[in-house]
Amino acid sequence: MKKFLFILSLLLFTSALYAQNIKLPTPNKSGGKPLMTVLNERKSSRDFSEKSLPNQQLSNLLWAAWGYNRADKRTAPSSQNKQEMDIYVALASGCYLYDARKNELVLVVKQDLREKTGKQDFVKNAPVNIIFVADKRKMAQQDEQSMLQTAYINTGFISQNIYLYCASEGLATVIRAWVDKAALALAMKLHDQQEIIVCQTVGYPK
Amino acid sequence: MKKFLFILSLLLFTSALYAQNIKLPTPNKSGGKPLMTVLNERKSSRDFSEKSLPNQQLSNLLWAAWGYNRADKRTAPSSQNKQEMDIYVALASGCYLYDARKNELVLVVKQDLREKTGKQDFVKNAPVNIIFVADKRKMAQQDEQSMLQTAYINTGFISQNIYLYCASEGLATVIRAWVDKAALALAMKLHDQQEIIVCQTVGYPK
Repeated sequence: MKKFLFILSLLLFTSALYAQNIKLPTPNKSGGKPLMTVLNERKSSRDFSEKSLPNQQLSNLLWAAWGYNRADKRTAPSSQNKQEMDIYVALASGCYLYDARKNELVLVVKQDLREKTGKQDFVKNAPVNIIFVADKRKMAQQDEQSMLQTAYINTGFISQNIYLYCASEGLATVIRAWVDKAALALAMKLHDQQEIIVCQTVGYPK
Repeated sequence: MKKFLFILSLLLFTSALYAQNIKLPTPNKSGGKPLMTVLNERKSSRDFSEKSLPNQQLSNLLWAAWGYNRADKRTAPSSQNKQEMDIYVALASGCYLYDARKNELVLVVKQDLREKTGKQDFVKNAPVNIIFVADKRKMAQQDEQSMLQTAYINTGFISQNIYLYCASEGLATVIRAWVDKAALALAMKLHDQQEIIVCQTVGYPK
């Protein structure tokens, strides 16, 4: 009986530990508007409703951005397929790392960091703020500037996927470079080899 | 009669002068596969047929990449809407600047520069090699490194549009950084404030 209780409490403890992650529904890998229509409707918007995105839409959005579309390749290219970019997602409930393999948002900081993802007023109330982070430990380039240039172009590929997904779904989005990166990295508890590139806000139009 | 002959030869001379530009047909701004299908089929390919692209497809491709979808905005964002990126197109007949306003390829060098756009074997025979060039005279950033990082992310947006257009149309494409940029810039007769970022090959799959 003691052993049973021990195992039970261990199970409860473990599930509580992981319950803070968000398991995303399987993304829809088909549908959406025709590509040329989407390109014609692509734009930046800065007026966001506070309404949160359903998990299904978040799952579709993140898969569109940087999900796997083959065994070891993704919806966006990366130099030498190093896949050094990580997508962090700041929601009201916390800041998460998008795990594209597990299709899960892994809790990183249980705190609303949205306000820290940019200096514009709208970022703190918009439901989703994506933070593009390069993990320099995964990169092949030798010098800092080459690494950063690579991370910037690789971010561009992913960010454009988000732009087009938003155009297809009638969502609002804007990419932003006006960020206190040092303060945000500290709040996100990033490793010193992780580099914040830019942030991108996503939500319903106001 | 002399006057008539003079005007006639003037007209012939003028048309010969401009005939080397390629006026593109109006791009189709609708159609294509559904966005999520396109994202699922997005990939890099390095096997290209030598068959050239019809002008209609070239027009669609270039509009998808970096055409105007609003009065002064394009299918891809750029920092502070500076639109500093220029798309050059190396074809067998010459190297051209894509003029998105006029929907025209403006002849820059009447020479086949495809081989100079990359060190891989396939570039010299693939029908289309796109050269992404940042015009630093149009940029707002103060220092060289910020300018380059901005140009790299802005190139990423445009390049991903090309990737997705190719996925939608069954074309092959790959972005490439392995380029002798100094030699290419010289062959293209670029201004010293113009910076080659990367190149991207497009063609039919072999």
